[in-house]
Amino acid sequence: MSRHPPGNRAAYRWFHAITTRWMDNDIYGHVNNVVYFSYFDTAVSLFEVEHRLIDLQRSPIVCVAAESQCRYHRPIAFPDRITVGLRCARIGTSSVRYELGVFRDGVDSAAAEGHFVHVFVERDSLRPVPIPAHVRAALQSIMVEV
Amino acid sequence: MSRHPPGNRAAYRWFHAITTRWMDNDIYGHVNNVVYFSYFDTAVSLFEVEHRLIDLQRSPIVCVAAESQCRYHRPIAFPDRITVGLRCARIGTSSVRYELGVFRDGVDSAAAEGHFVHVFVERDSLRPVPIPAHVRAALQSIMVEV
Amino acid sequence: MSRHPPGNRAAYRWFHAITTRWMDNDIYGHVNNVVYFSYFDTAVSLFEVEHRLIDLQRSPIVCVAAESQCRYHRPIAFPDRITVGLRCARIGTSSVRYELGVFRDGVDSAAAEGHFVHVFVERDSLRPVPIPAHVRAALQSIMVEV
Amino acid sequence: MSRHPPGNRAAYRWFHAITTRWMDNDIYGHVNNVVYFSYFDTAVSLFEVEHRLIDLQRSPIVCVAAESQCRYHRPIAFPDRITVGLRCARIGTSSVRYELGVFRDGVDSAAAEGHFVHVFVERDSLRPVPIPAHVRAALQSIMVEV
Repeated sequence: MSRHPPGNRAAYRWFHAITTRWMDNDIYGHVNNVVYFSYFDTAVSLFEVEHRLIDLQRSPIVCVAAESQCRYHRPIAFPDRITVGLRCARIGTSSVRYELGVFRDGVDSAAAEGHFVHVFVERDSLRPVPIPAHVRAALQSIMVEV
Repeated sequence: MSRHPPGNRAAYRWFHAITTRWMDNDIYGHVNNVVYFSYFDTAVSLFEVEHRLIDLQRSPIVCVAAESQCRYHRPIAFPDRITVGLRCARIGTSSVRYELGVFRDGVDSAAAEGHFVHVFVERDSLRPVPIPAHVRAALQSIMVEV
Repeated sequence: MSRHPPGNRAAYRWFHAITTRWMDNDIYGHVNNVVYFSYFDTAVSLFEVEHRLIDLQRSPIVCVAAESQCRYHRPIAFPDRITVGLRCARIGTSSVRYELGVFRDGVDSAAAEGHFVHVFVERDSLRPVPIPAHVRAALQSIMVEV
Repeated sequence: MSRHPPGNRAAYRWFHAITTRWMDNDIYGHVNNVVYFSYFDTAVSLFEVEHRLIDLQRSPIVCVAAESQCRYHRPIAFPDRITVGLRCARIGTSSVRYELGVFRDGVDSAAAEGHFVHVFVERDSLRPVPIPAHVRAALQSIMVEV
């Protein structure tokens, strides 16, 4: 429903397949707008865990959300299978801007696209900390030129 | 965590109190970023239902989300009580831009703020339709000058 | 839809009002069966927090779910307002059986009823521990004879 | 945490893999008890859709939940991969009792098990109807002797 033209899969650098759930669908029979952010959240967290940016239970540095946005291009619905594409658009001192696309299986243009800003903070104080070098390298690996 | 300065309650025109839920909290003990969009979604839908903009089950015109965004200023957590503030920032031919703030009870500055664009469409075809006059009047009642 | 006769409000000892959310509704326009367990979960946790049975962030003893069940008597739907009734049906060495009813505002017989077994465990090892005396007293205060 | 001994994969007849999500985890870092019912709900619905028992958008007969239950044996956590096993334990005139197990990948004994009773009803009146013959045949295909 957004007027912005949807991007395609080639614009993303890392992918995670997600299975939709019955309760993702709302009264209109489509995945509810809120649920897309759960897809974003899951893809970002999985990237961060798999690349050892954070450890959910133990690491002294964790990530908190500063901003998230989604534009909805066309509906998806359970039991569709989807893939979330991820790329990194900007790496700051303490924060990273991820961009994400939700793709229905077999379709090249995104059903929805958005971004997600994560800030690296101390687990207890929630104070921003500089992004560690090994994290910066992992983020660079999915960086795109804008 | 967003760098944008948070707004306060006086900047909003209509309010809805929401009770937080145990599962709103994530592993860090704060309301997960995704859940804020459920608060937005609920406030917007309730405004639309109470002001008879739409009827969830029967009206030939329904609303679909085109875009949503949230900036997170400070954490909230179950069992906090919260209120969502709503205002209308722009009324187009077929779409409306709502702006929303999430307020913790007893706190005047927003814990999070964002926007939500709803497009009025035919229920079956999902084609945009002009906003009906009685809907436009209801939206005007919570309009703010920017 | 359950064949069991629904109970009424007088059968419960402690109550918590919950606001429904737009995304609680499923494709049929009623609150999805899964969401009732979130109502249960929230009422039980709030009772436990308010009566200082547990502290979500710090206490060395926490509660984990052993079993939960719900029988659905009649549908509810956003934007209904609901109240969850709670009572204690059995207090064991390490576990407690709560019983719960979901009531639509203005209706005396339950829309749904169920139970929830919580086990008191050490936060780190997840090993069951005897229910402390002050917790037992709080549970006794909402105990019913069966 | 349930005292009932967990079943294993061989006790189930149909399987569906589900990807866990970041927000499935609660404050203790494990999948919240509520979310298991979403796994159940999804597996049952998918079985029903794939075997053409119902059509979510159009069929005059739909299924509503009468009862659901879950026993929790051991925790799972995002980013675990899981599979839900399904079997049919009883077919009545208008209702079916499904039994379900949640299995962590690579583990043969269930992390959680439960049941789910679906009643076949007319979409508009919600009145129970006899289970159609083709549906009964599909259910028989995953029936187990108790």
